Amino acid sequence: MSERSSHWQLHTIVSQLRTARDQWRTQNGRVSGEQGGRELPSRAAMAEILEALCGALFPMRLGPVDLREESEDFYVGHTLDVALNALLAQARLELRYAARHSAATDHQLDTELEAKTISIIQDFALALPGLRSLLDTDVLAAYHGDPAARSVDEVLLCYPGILAVIHHRLAHHLYRAGLPLLARISAEIAHSATGIDIHPGAQIGRSFFIDHGTGVVIGETAIIGERVRIYQAVTLGAKRFPADEDGQLQKGHPRHPIVEDDVVIYAGATILGRITIGKGSTIGGNVWLTRSVPAGCNLTQANLQHDDGTQK
Amino acid sequence: MSERSSHWQLHTIVSQLRTARDQWRTQNGRVSGEQGGRELPSRAAMAEILEALCGALFPMRLGPVDLREESEDFYVGHTLDVALNALLAQARLELRYAARHSAATDHQLDTELEAKTISIIQDFALALPGLRSLLDTDVLAAYHGDPAARSVDEVLLCYPGILAVIHHRLAHHLYRAGLPLLARISAEIAHSATGIDIHPGAQIGRSFFIDHGTGVVIGETAIIGERVRIYQAVTLGAKRFPADEDGQLQKGHPRHPIVEDDVVIYAGATILGRITIGKGSTIGGNVWLTRSVPAGCNLTQANLQHDDGTQK
Amino acid sequence: MSERSSHWQLHTIVSQLRTARDQWRTQNGRVSGEQGGRELPSRAAMAEILEALCGALFPMRLGPVDLREESEDFYVGHTLDVALNALLAQARLELRYAARHSAATDHQLDTELEAKTISIIQDFALALPGLRSLLDTDVLAAYHGDPAARSVDEVLLCYPGILAVIHHRLAHHLYRAGLPLLARISAEIAHSATGIDIHPGAQIGRSFFIDHGTGVVIGETAIIGERVRIYQAVTLGAKRFPADEDGQLQKGHPRHPIVEDDVVIYAGATILGRITIGKGSTIGGNVWLTRSVPAGCNLTQANLQHDDGTQK
Amino acid sequence: MSERSSHWQLHTIVSQLRTARDQWRTQNGRVSGEQGGRELPSRAAMAEILEALCGALFPMRLGPVDLREESEDFYVGHTLDVALNALLAQARLELRYAARHSAATDHQLDTELEAKTISIIQDFALALPGLRSLLDTDVLAAYHGDPAARSVDEVLLCYPGILAVIHHRLAHHLYRAGLPLLARISAEIAHSATGIDIHPGAQIGRSFFIDHGTGVVIGETAIIGERVRIYQAVTLGAKRFPADEDGQLQKGHPRHPIVEDDVVIYAGATILGRITIGKGSTIGGNVWLTRSVPAGCNLTQANLQHDDGTQK
Amino acid sequence: MSERSSHWQLHTIVSQLRTARDQWRTQNGRVSGEQGGRELPSRAAMAEILEALCGALFPMRLGPVDLREESEDFYVGHTLDVALNALLAQARLELRYAARHSAATDHQLDTELEAKTISIIQDFALALPGLRSLLDTDVLAAYHGDPAARSVDEVLLCYPGILAVIHHRLAHHLYRAGLPLLARISAEIAHSATGIDIHPGAQIGRSFFIDHGTGVVIGETAIIGERVRIYQAVTLGAKRFPADEDGQLQKGHPRHPIVEDDVVIYAGATILGRITIGKGSTIGGNVWLTRSVPAGCNLTQANLQHDDGTQK
Amino acid sequence: MSERSSHWQLHTIVSQLRTARDQWRTQNGRVSGEQGGRELPSRAAMAEILEALCGALFPMRLGPVDLREESEDFYVGHTLDVALNALLAQARLELRYAARHSAATDHQLDTELEAKTISIIQDFALALPGLRSLLDTDVLAAYHGDPAARSVDEVLLCYPGILAVIHHRLAHHLYRAGLPLLARISAEIAHSATGIDIHPGAQIGRSFFIDHGTGVVIGETAIIGERVRIYQAVTLGAKRFPADEDGQLQKGHPRHPIVEDDVVIYAGATILGRITIGKGSTIGGNVWLTRSVPAGCNLTQANLQHDDGTQK
Repeated sequence: MSERSSHWQLHTIVSQLRTARDQWRTQNGRVSGEQGGRELPSRAAMAEILEALCGALFPMRLGPVDLREESEDFYVGHTLDVALNALLAQARLELRYAARHSAATDHQLDTELEAKTISIIQDFALALPGLRSLLDTDVLAAYHGDPAARSVDEVLLCYPGILAVIHHRLAHHLYRAGLPLLARISAEIAHSATGIDIHPGAQIGRSFFIDHGTGVVIGETAIIGERVRIYQAVTLGAKRFPADEDGQLQKGHPRHPIVEDDVVIYAGATILGRITIGKGSTIGGNVWLTRSVPAGCNLTQANLQHDDGTQK
Repeated sequence: MSERSSHWQLHTIVSQLRTARDQWRTQNGRVSGEQGGRELPSRAAMAEILEALCGALFPMRLGPVDLREESEDFYVGHTLDVALNALLAQARLELRYAARHSAATDHQLDTELEAKTISIIQDFALALPGLRSLLDTDVLAAYHGDPAARSVDEVLLCYPGILAVIHHRLAHHLYRAGLPLLARISAEIAHSATGIDIHPGAQIGRSFFIDHGTGVVIGETAIIGERVRIYQAVTLGAKRFPADEDGQLQKGHPRHPIVEDDVVIYAGATILGRITIGKGSTIGGNVWLTRSVPAGCNLTQANLQHDDGTQK
Repeated sequence: MSERSSHWQLHTIVSQLRTARDQWRTQNGRVSGEQGGRELPSRAAMAEILEALCGALFPMRLGPVDLREESEDFYVGHTLDVALNALLAQARLELRYAARHSAATDHQLDTELEAKTISIIQDFALALPGLRSLLDTDVLAAYHGDPAARSVDEVLLCYPGILAVIHHRLAHHLYRAGLPLLARISAEIAHSATGIDIHPGAQIGRSFFIDHGTGVVIGETAIIGERVRIYQAVTLGAKRFPADEDGQLQKGHPRHPIVEDDVVIYAGATILGRITIGKGSTIGGNVWLTRSVPAGCNLTQANLQHDDGTQK
Repeated sequence: MSERSSHWQLHTIVSQLRTARDQWRTQNGRVSGEQGGRELPSRAAMAEILEALCGALFPMRLGPVDLREESEDFYVGHTLDVALNALLAQARLELRYAARHSAATDHQLDTELEAKTISIIQDFALALPGLRSLLDTDVLAAYHGDPAARSVDEVLLCYPGILAVIHHRLAHHLYRAGLPLLARISAEIAHSATGIDIHPGAQIGRSFFIDHGTGVVIGETAIIGERVRIYQAVTLGAKRFPADEDGQLQKGHPRHPIVEDDVVIYAGATILGRITIGKGSTIGGNVWLTRSVPAGCNLTQANLQHDDGTQK
Repeated sequence: MSERSSHWQLHTIVSQLRTARDQWRTQNGRVSGEQGGRELPSRAAMAEILEALCGALFPMRLGPVDLREESEDFYVGHTLDVALNALLAQARLELRYAARHSAATDHQLDTELEAKTISIIQDFALALPGLRSLLDTDVLAAYHGDPAARSVDEVLLCYPGILAVIHHRLAHHLYRAGLPLLARISAEIAHSATGIDIHPGAQIGRSFFIDHGTGVVIGETAIIGERVRIYQAVTLGAKRFPADEDGQLQKGHPRHPIVEDDVVIYAGATILGRITIGKGSTIGGNVWLTRSVPAGCNLTQANLQHDDGTQK
Repeated sequence: MSERSSHWQLHTIVSQLRTARDQWRTQNGRVSGEQGGRELPSRAAMAEILEALCGALFPMRLGPVDLREESEDFYVGHTLDVALNALLAQARLELRYAARHSAATDHQLDTELEAKTISIIQDFALALPGLRSLLDTDVLAAYHGDPAARSVDEVLLCYPGILAVIHHRLAHHLYRAGLPLLARISAEIAHSATGIDIHPGAQIGRSFFIDHGTGVVIGETAIIGERVRIYQAVTLGAKRFPADEDGQLQKGHPRHPIVEDDVVIYAGATILGRITIGKGSTIGGNVWLTRSVPAGCNLTQANLQHDDGTQK
């Protein structure tokens, strides 16, 4: 039995893993001693926070099963209190991380960061009632948009598109408030649960509905109007990115589509680049589109092929 | 430190959230006082119930790791008992919810609903042995249909398509029994885990196999025969819905495809509307199809394009 | 209240379920008495093991939130110890399962299997530092490949493509070491979380990046070079499998694409069969491809259609 | 490996255990079929309820660590709501259990019991503010009574005597309200945690303090005045019970001491029978006492022995 | 912030702790290399096992709240299966630990130990129905012995004396079967929960009742007859142990009291040494006793003092 | 069903509870607005910390079941890291609480407190190896002192006296370091689990052993020498405290016994006041003692009574 104690050569492996980490840190320009106890936000913590916020926003439908109206406000207040404190802690981690290369002294930094963090989360908290009203328009859009929906409650309990939109509207607020990492984590939690991948930077108007949803991708600079309806596997993406002189892809500029009010985009359509889909247009299933479309247009694979044909 | 106690303006936010809820309730025709302690079914509860039912149906493969044949029946009986009691409670919640506008007195209602709920779950329980035999045909279909499968046990442990089909067959029973909300929740639990979105209303014959599966969508009124094989990203959907006079989409009529026995549909095919894919046909990858296809047909993107070409 | 005690007719259902299991076992050639306490690996156990390994490989980013550099090695060593012991137990279950039809005596078998199991996991453990360095190239590829990425830490925390690649590189080692079932379970855990379905048999070179990822499918015999970039819904699949004389699909031969170094494949492209995509090529979105492509080729749907046109 | 499947002879043991249960039920006059789904209250459920009530009564000291005054009421309201609903369910179980031999029809019974249960728990809820004020006197008594106490907060966080008194005052309310089983369970939860065994029937005045506490026993019919202080291993018990004609101990009559206001009883004193300890008396350590003591008396083992001596 | 990374001087402390462990091992004659992966049983594991066995022995009272008679056997069988497998694993650890100095080869040892372990747990399993019947006599004794008891169910749910006796009867079986360490752990779990400290070696007859119980101590070689009743703080202990020539206390011989049938011992009595309390005797509260007592004797502190007086 | 929504009159009760809290705060001189988010240490957090420290001190016996020597240091280092960080957070809470009436500005206070907290926990960490060696002497004392002990490992796994001593030695360090509240919480955790109540202020020499232990009380200013052995229900307490002019008990002075080296005190002995038990003395069971005893004395109840007799 004595040989069992050297099963894994743990000391060797641990040491080699340390070497691998050191190489990484050296190659990527970080000095090991500098970073001390640096901490990153936690995906598990964000998942709990988002679940609590969902309950606080829709207490009778996403809160505890036996909640009654008499105690709704107690539940909402207590749940918000816990969730906001937890979100404050995560925000502090992101802002400290973002400031890790700052020249300020630790103490200056801590004082400023703390004030900024509290201010961001206070604004977030105050925005929640407005977000709830906005989300109500999305719930109604789903109810009216899907012939299979039996009630608005079913929509909230079941529809992955609604889960994705709740997460997006919360994440988008965090993104604009200067917490892009928490925003991205929030978006990826929804992506993992629904297969719907909305970058938190995307701007989306009221009464938005995604049906089925698996495979939907909406990019960082996309702008979507009101009453837009989208089906599974739709991409609102960027065209290929030109590399800069160093061979690196260029970052930052508007590169995703603008979708105006009252547009419907059917399953599998791929819409790429900073083009505009005009108000009230309908884009058919599996359409591949890299040019703007005027208002009121009804575009299908068939007319695209026909169109190509006549141009030849 | 004293200002910490007013961080979140909780009383303001809680009150504004209440106002937002009241607006929603008013606009959607519900009188707040009416609904008292109304409770909705719980997704978390359904997830536990479904996991337990999977274990009871396939004890040696989806049950506890150290189960032995001597104790199989004890495990199955105990697990069913717990799962059925829990399902009874969820079913009661759905039926009470569905009856919330009923004119019957509370007591009449409770007595009738209770009898109905028990009867539904008793029937569900009695159907389980038949469902197990049906699912065995699906497991064999997966084993024979995928060249990479090494054993039927691997299929049950690993294949997302099998998970989706188990959930569907249980959800479809609940759907037909008058519990469409529990059915939909069950389907969405599988959708989230697998990316496969089968509406619980869909009718599916024995020996059904979905490979890979991400992005598959099967609509509420689809009818699928025996020995059908489907790959990832296949849609069996509805064509665009005509809006009625009020601008609302029409609900209810058969609007998804009929797929006859022994059909194979390759990845990415989109099949829309109440059309029929004849027995033994093969539909190629990425095909876009809105017309019926006779039995024995072998349809690929190539012949579709060719077909278009000759028509010009 | 007395009738409550016969709600479910449990004894009947349990007995019918047993009959269903017996039928299955008989039809599939297993003698019930033979298998005794046979146990299968556990998906939940593998999920815990993989989470621990992720933490051990990237302690400051996927490990505990408050880890500091002073204690990194303690954390890594302890976490590896727990994870490797747990993996040893799962590997033992797979190898015993694989040997269930062996003619060897129990004792011979146990001794041999135990030695083999320990040896496999020891090799796995020793490979971890190399895997970490390999994964660092993937993280950098993601950072450089996505204009929206703000830091390499964000990539590790958020990108589903990175999660899928970590799981794949671990799973691929298990696959080659003779543990295909544990490998497949590991791959399906990532598939469920990300919508990215990479068979553990696929060979993938350094600096690999999958963006968005939902719907990606990479088959068992695919071979991918270095610095390859892939977008959502790309399939590297097999063409239709010829059935053998018994009507069974043929298993085993190379049947998925070879993708050479520096290739980019845009969203929705479907590439099927044992073809080769030459070094440095770019495959456009939604392209359907079943023929080899030379090095440096830039292929879009448009030139494909044009190409088809000129051949007619 | 085949013999593993008969390790435990489970079917034999399960059957013999059933026989043992049947014998018990027969000998104790219960007809098996009668009791159907009868359910007993749960100790684990009561433990959770009591922990929640402790938090609601003392939110800043026994509630969540990071509670702030702004959100105290939300926490208290939400916690009470959950705890009272859970207590309602336990009370329903006790009252149904108590009524199991009733002749009333199920329906009559259910309706009456439900009304009674709700009424009891409503009264309990309304009594909580008064109980909190009463407990404040106990906390102050502990702080003033123990030279080692540094603050009232330390007393609430640390002193087992306080934990026992909180549980007792809640349990005593349940006892008087007709829920003796829930009361007893509550008392035993405190007994297990502190070694202090107070029967929920005991009547105890304000400003009560037990120091150290292990081994204290206070009987069902004991009556304790205000400002009483008791040390570890004190017994306020019954003398030996006369057996009735059937050899059974007689149940029900007052049989434990009356302790008047301002009495101190030191460690290990044993006081038995329906005697009275007069106002302001002090009972020394290890004293054995079965006769009443007038007001203002200072009794030690020494004077007792002396007393005995003079009587001889 | 950089100094944070050397907060704890972890490497120094870990190294000093290793030195301390090495000193201990050297001084206590163990060679470090010898013991490899030696593992001790786990208290947490035994606590779970005992809770499960309590449920299996008394399913309607200590099992799950909503158990019904229809499913009792399923619950009992499944719970036993899990508990016995877990107990087997703990027994294996104890026996391997006990054999750690054996001269046998690893393989011989493993084979023999495994057979012995299985045999012990099989016997334990077969003894459970008899233990249940024996425990029924204890439950009745408690019900008849305490005037405050309202039902036998209350006794099982609430009385610490019953919890202690259930643990003792299980622990005593393990003790006699050659698993003294598991036995002792089981006894200490009950000791911690109840303040009742019964050494698992003690032999105790049927219909045994301990009331209140805190502070009861019953020694390893005590023998207790049938229908014995004991109150809190009673000690059945050893007299002072003579040291041997090395100054070590002598171990092993009978050194605790024999208590014959139908004896009652009131609170706080201390009975020391291998003396006999004759059938039907009553020992009064706080009595200090080191001499045998004949049958039918009624001994109180008063007659002891009187007795002493008359002897002078 | 509408009346359900006013079950609990929650708003009334919450408001009355607030009034009760306000009364308490007013009467006890705290201004509500002052205290903001003040937080107290958490008993649950301390319980986790102590369990981790036990594992780090005795890894092979109180650590994880499957720990092997190869990985001991990894486990110890990682566990210490987590436990010390958590203890740092609790210490910060206690010191902030203690400073709540300080006149310093928040910022001064925070900076000073943080430095002090870190320094205290660093010293605590560095003291752990010495504590381990000290505890080894206690383990040996238990092994040699109890004839029923089979191995030193059994002692560590089972003996409540050892659990109490480990907690005491850790708590005593915290007490001396200026964390009396954390110290007291640690002591009460052990008190609840063992019935042994040792005030963390007590000074206790090496090789200390408490057998059985239930009911032992050792006061704040007690001083205990080396190689002392104590049995259950022994009290080392204070005599009655004289009240000061305000009727408050006086706090602070030495008031508990000094027990010199090599003393044995048998069960139930009560020793009160600042007296000295001389080296090597033996105090018999149930002895009541309030005067000093010279070295080498052998005191039993019998000689005490005799002694009393001769004085008369």
